Amino acid sequence: MVNDEQQIRDLVATWMSATRAGDIDTVLSLMTDDVVFLVAGQPPFGKQEFARALSVPPGALVPQIDGRSEIEEIRVIGDWAFMRTRLTVEVTSGSRTMKRAGHTLSVLRKSGGKWQLARDANLLTPVET
Amino acid sequence: MVNDEQQIRDLVATWMSATRAGDIDTVLSLMTDDVVFLVAGQPPFGKQEFARALSVPPGALVPQIDGRSEIEEIRVIGDWAFMRTRLTVEVTSGSRTMKRAGHTLSVLRKSGGKWQLARDANLLTPVET
Repeated sequence: MVNDEQQIRDLVATWMSATRAGDIDTVLSLMTDDVVFLVAGQPPFGKQEFARALSVPPGALVPQIDGRSEIEEIRVIGDWAFMRTRLTVEVTSGSRTMKRAGHTLSVLRKSGGKWQLARDANLLTPVET
Repeated sequence: MVNDEQQIRDLVATWMSATRAGDIDTVLSLMTDDVVFLVAGQPPFGKQEFARALSVPPGALVPQIDGRSEIEEIRVIGDWAFMRTRLTVEVTSGSRTMKRAGHTLSVLRKSGGKWQLARDANLLTPVET
């Protein structure tokens, strides 16, 4: 039997591989419908805005997104959990790569036996490449 | 009987008033010993670093810190809780005021009947004053 902490680690691994593959539907399935994302310098946003930001107009250049996540803490409290990670994300569009790195604090929720991201604070800042 | 959500609201109010009064000991009593603070552009830090950042050398100008916190969400899960706020902080040192605003995501823990801040992601960015 896979325990909750391992399931959350699997969620993070799936999130990264689906992002790398441009598989938006899988990424969206890993978050609750009422997910709230917090990033610096803009208002909180939800699942629809997340999907919109990832979608690419037909004919446009598809950016390649790659990332590495190092989990620093997972604490499971019943059907809720929180997690801290150190995250690096590289977005390549044409010949240009933008790299961001930093930490995240997330709240996760288990529903129907499945863990999903429910709240996410992303503190990444640009890194010189 | 004061419920958990109200106790957490009181913690935030006490945090703000103690900060305003320069009462570092009270602020430190509102966080767990293993608290982790996350801010953009620097490594996670704990209670000691928080205390050091607030302490002023003898004879130095004491900065005036003022803030307003608007709680957007509190969710209590047993002896744990998470909270989102919209926060504005103004630090005045001499004639210079620096204002920062943005959102926070925090994890709180109840221990010995008392709520304390346990993890905190602070997404504040500078605001023109």
